[in-house]
Amino acid sequence: MKIIIVGGTGTIGKHVVKALEAGNEIIEVGSKSGDFQIDITDLSSIQSFFEKVGPFDALVSTTGSAHFGPLSKMTDAAFRVGVDSKLLGQINLVLIGQHYINPKGSFTLTSGSLAEDPIILGSAVSAINGAINSFVKSAYMELENGVRINVVAPGVVEDSPHYFPFFPGDIPNQMHHVAQAYVKSVVGGQNGQVFKVG
Amino acid sequence: MKIIIVGGTGTIGKHVVKALEAGNEIIEVGSKSGDFQIDITDLSSIQSFFEKVGPFDALVSTTGSAHFGPLSKMTDAAFRVGVDSKLLGQINLVLIGQHYINPKGSFTLTSGSLAEDPIILGSAVSAINGAINSFVKSAYMELENGVRINVVAPGVVEDSPHYFPFFPGDIPNQMHHVAQAYVKSVVGGQNGQVFKVG
Ligand SMILES: NC(=O)c1ccc[n+]([C@@H]2O[C@H](COP(=O)([O-])OP(=O)(O)OC[C@H]3O[C@@H](n4cnc5c(N)ncnc54)[C@H](OP(=O)(O)O)[C@@H]3O)[C@@H](O)[C@H]2O)c1
Ligand SMILES: NC(=O)c1ccc[n+]([C@@H]2O[C@H](COP(=O)([O-])OP(=O)(O)OC[C@H]3O[C@@H](n4cnc5c(N)ncnc54)[C@H](OP(=O)(O)O)[C@@H]3O)[C@@H](O)[C@H]2O)c1
Repeated sequence: MKIIIVGGTGTIGKHVVKALEAGNEIIEVGSKSGDFQIDITDLSSIQSFFEKVGPFDALVSTTGSAHFGPLSKMTDAAFRVGVDSKLLGQINLVLIGQHYINPKGSFTLTSGSLAEDPIILGSAVSAINGAINSFVKSAYMELENGVRINVVAPGVVEDSPHYFPFFPGDIPNQMHHVAQAYVKSVVGGQNGQVFKVG
Repeated sequence: MKIIIVGGTGTIGKHVVKALEAGNEIIEVGSKSGDFQIDITDLSSIQSFFEKVGPFDALVSTTGSAHFGPLSKMTDAAFRVGVDSKLLGQINLVLIGQHYINPKGSFTLTSGSLAEDPIILGSAVSAINGAINSFVKSAYMELENGVRINVVAPGVVEDSPHYFPFFPGDIPNQMHHVAQAYVKSVVGGQNGQVFKVG
């Protein structure tokens, strides 16, 4: 399989690369790193990437930012960071990528546990994660030619210790467990699913 | 109680007005109708509304648009209709309104069944509804002075027959049942909840 991993150079993405590289052609994508550079917040950057990279069998997205901060100071602009990046950045990979993906291909996006298991300072991120999950639970019905879509919803991961203080009581997810959720989505047959990790 | 109902002149909103008007001061808000006119997609319009209307005990939002259409033709711009209106329009009522609401007040937003029970053509609306639900499930933890927040997630309602063909097999919700979910949120004590109707 030819597998594009947008965010493949990041904390989670590099474990996904390792878990999928045997026997597959992996294309790592970052904003500054990787085999290709794109900016998921820029439609023309996404479009020209798909033109250049050609048909593919799977796209995994392990990227996207969103704003953490107190509700009492939250603004429209802060909320829109996650709308533009983690939400529409990933959704535009699907909306545009659906016209380039091979039959029986798959999309795998990333949300996070905050969609259902919130933390203080996390309300904007929760909203973005909830949006991605519900998008996937609906969009799978309309993808054509046997193309599938799933989303992985990890809790905080063991390789991100700087996040631990914000997730009191949460057991950090092992990178192996997180990476295998992406393998399950790409190599398995499930569709329209939210794979929770942890 | 002084209760603001943004969208109080609409299909769902007018039933919420009827269900809450006995013994309360109701302020109906629309874009062209009602006691006050605002545009929820315009931050300055929301801000100046709260300045004018003064402190209040409950804000109910039964408003917001989002795009219905095929995934294969969905664009970033189409998706953003719902981001700007139903999602951030309602969230900005909370982000700004939290600085004007009385202690022990409440916010009640509207999402919809599509967050979890999708239909063909509904992927953008599903995403928006999922975002609102997850926002409420997180934001309740940070609201101050005993202020509460909930969201009502109705299925298609009996007063909207033009939607019926898009919801095959769904039993339209009775307006009375829908309106009572808002009463439960405003008059009851629950917090951070998604009230599904139907
Ligand atoms: N870490 C956690 O504990 C955790 C838990 C749950 C969910 N998540 C979610 O998982 C995803 C990945 O998190 P992570 O911790 O692995 O992030 P990360 O270490 O910061 O990695 C981000 C990756 O995305 C790329 N990237 C950054 N901005 C980009 C842009 N505008 N366009 C295209 N690519 C871009 C980066 O490449 P460059 O370095 O070249 O920019 C990098 O490969 C995020 O959505 C995050 O919310 C993370
Ligand atoms: N109808 C259903 O079957 C159904 C099912 C599930 C969820 N919902 C959700 O419930 C909410 C209300 O739906 P509805 O069918 O009652 O809608 P509706 O009949 O179209 O009523 C919309 C209300 O919002 C006001 N409004 C419109 N644009 C506005 C703006 N930019 N700023 C402020 N107010 C604005 C309208 O006032 P003006 O006329 O003055 O503009 C009206 O009071 C929506 O979020 C919808 O997605 C509806």
